[in-house]
Amino acid sequence: MLGHPWIFGNEVNNIEGDVTAGDTVEVYTHQGFFVGRGYINPQSQILVRLLTRHRDEQINDEFFYHRLLKCWEYRQRLGYTENCRLVFGEADEMPALVIDKFNDYFVLQTLSLGMDKWKPAIVNALQRIFSPKGIYERNDVPVRELEGLAQQKGFLSAPFDTNLIIRENGLQFHVDIENGQKTGYFLDQQDNRREIQHIVKGADVLEAFCYTGTFSCHAGHYGAKSVLGLDISDHAVNTARRNAALNGLQEVCRFQAVNAFDVLKQWTKEDKKFDVVILDPPAFTKSRENIQKAITGYKEINLRGMKLLKPGGFLVTASCTNLVTPAVFLETIDQAAKDAKKRLRQVTFQTQAQDHPILWSVDNTTYLKFLIVEVS
Amino acid sequence: MLGHPWIFGNEVNNIEGDVTAGDTVEVYTHQGFFVGRGYINPQSQILVRLLTRHRDEQINDEFFYHRLLKCWEYRQRLGYTENCRLVFGEADEMPALVIDKFNDYFVLQTLSLGMDKWKPAIVNALQRIFSPKGIYERNDVPVRELEGLAQQKGFLSAPFDTNLIIRENGLQFHVDIENGQKTGYFLDQQDNRREIQHIVKGADVLEAFCYTGTFSCHAGHYGAKSVLGLDISDHAVNTARRNAALNGLQEVCRFQAVNAFDVLKQWTKEDKKFDVVILDPPAFTKSRENIQKAITGYKEINLRGMKLLKPGGFLVTASCTNLVTPAVFLETIDQAAKDAKKRLRQVTFQTQAQDHPILWSVDNTTYLKFLIVEVS
Repeated sequence: MLGHPWIFGNEVNNIEGDVTAGDTVEVYTHQGFFVGRGYINPQSQILVRLLTRHRDEQINDEFFYHRLLKCWEYRQRLGYTENCRLVFGEADEMPALVIDKFNDYFVLQTLSLGMDKWKPAIVNALQRIFSPKGIYERNDVPVRELEGLAQQKGFLSAPFDTNLIIRENGLQFHVDIENGQKTGYFLDQQDNRREIQHIVKGADVLEAFCYTGTFSCHAGHYGAKSVLGLDISDHAVNTARRNAALNGLQEVCRFQAVNAFDVLKQWTKEDKKFDVVILDPPAFTKSRENIQKAITGYKEINLRGMKLLKPGGFLVTASCTNLVTPAVFLETIDQAAKDAKKRLRQVTFQTQAQDHPILWSVDNTTYLKFLIVEVS
Repeated sequence: MLGHPWIFGNEVNNIEGDVTAGDTVEVYTHQGFFVGRGYINPQSQILVRLLTRHRDEQINDEFFYHRLLKCWEYRQRLGYTENCRLVFGEADEMPALVIDKFNDYFVLQTLSLGMDKWKPAIVNALQRIFSPKGIYERNDVPVRELEGLAQQKGFLSAPFDTNLIIRENGLQFHVDIENGQKTGYFLDQQDNRREIQHIVKGADVLEAFCYTGTFSCHAGHYGAKSVLGLDISDHAVNTARRNAALNGLQEVCRFQAVNAFDVLKQWTKEDKKFDVVILDPPAFTKSRENIQKAITGYKEINLRGMKLLKPGGFLVTASCTNLVTPAVFLETIDQAAKDAKKRLRQVTFQTQAQDHPILWSVDNTTYLKFLIVEVS
């Protein structure tokens, strides 16, 4: 039950028998002790991903049914029933599998060859547990190519309208599971969005990198005087406007399709001021080689965000890449404050919502950092 | 606005003029730049504690009025209006001052000589802002002796019944501001107590170090099947029983006056099992010399807590001393899990409530760690 579920090729001494990519294999230590059972892909740097460390647990359709049931019981236990990340890969002992539940609809990603092979079993398990209105595959993800898999998306059930409306914290949001980013919606911020409840009351709020405006709409809903959301994508900004209208917030929440980097820079020069600045940027890097570039990006936008605040205003800032650790993220914000000659008081510092559990031994499960600070 | 507000004696080259302990002094760098204004105590290792870094801000009665008003505005801003830590010392630029607000009543601690001198100004400010029903001083704290101050407690307003009842998260609790620990109640866990809401439903819950049973009563309130609270103090256990009765939970929540260390050890041997174990112990150390002892204590109780859980049960565990950093606390829990051969999944990791703000540059403002993990 302990340790990381990935076994790299260079850790393996020899492979007994013929194996085909995707086969279930057993892993033993040099001394012959059973380590676990998982799927193999000789084409991948990650040779084996373990599915179980229990010798008597076989990998078959029933295995996936019981694992999904366990995932569902866990989300129910923690109170995540309507929308949730039902399966969060390694943190659920289901390496390379992601399933998001949007009420009666499910969006699935199988990001490794071994897991992709079990897609029919997984779809069957979903049918058996939930009798869903629809299941959709969002496997249009470059990482699949490292596994020798094609990028693809489409229905895994009878076709249905992929434009959904979900409820969250008393608001409603459009979710485009076919063309939206990742699975169509960032459920990982669902609890963090509530955290701005008090600080936005009566406030002039700026949100940079607002995507489809979910934080912005929350700000409007919680009583902001004005909200301005910026995103470089016309499509995102249009959806943000539709989300505001869906919640009757079109008078309070405005959106502009602009490059937030440029606008933050320009407005800092113009000495514009807000009561609350929200920064929820996309991952600035996906590779370890570019961590320093990402850190520089975080520092720049946070420094500018701080400068755009009235004294005593609040900066709401997030980072969604596991490559920047919580400690490095806080250090970056601290450095930005020193450069901006601002003093920070921490209001809250948290992670992704609890339906994305964290395994301390698996780096990429600790990924979302969400910080609110008072800036003076 | 930056940096730590404490100036140690060995950092000061010379003192100009005659100073008496408690005097307001100005601090300058070697180059003659103004650092700030604060109060001096030549008897204390901390020679000066800064109250302001603004040259034009004078330290007088109005200063304390405006600072308290600012503290109150901050708590209101964050939604802490009924009960809150109104002043959290250094984090509010009010070094060595603590004020807790229990609805219309206030409990005050002035933990340094310089702040103690301003007690009348602080009491006047409280009267002016809140017209409180009562103000009480809980200066029966050993740390005052390092400042040459006597330990004392008593009324700073007309006398009143010091047995209060406060509301929290839909429950009610007895607060004994005269004889309870610290200011009579641990407001710092008020938000964390809500975090157990989902995991305790239908569960058999054990709370060790339960003090006056606030977590236990929350567990009962949120639907636990049974709750057993343990505390070594008869007085605490009696109050816990009264708290359970006050909330109609006397059938669900039981309490025993026992040494929790012994009982955890004994029950581990007897292989007793619970669905949820809550550990909210007092600080195991107050001095840097004993950090290792504290860590050993945390490890022991958490290891036993884990062993007392059914597979998939939840450990709710806290540490309230700033001497054990968040990283060291997590490392200790991780070690305990390895020794207990358990796998942990993090549900949440947070700090004290937001009415106790955190300054990254001031160590003792980051003190409370609150962790929930699933244990398998």
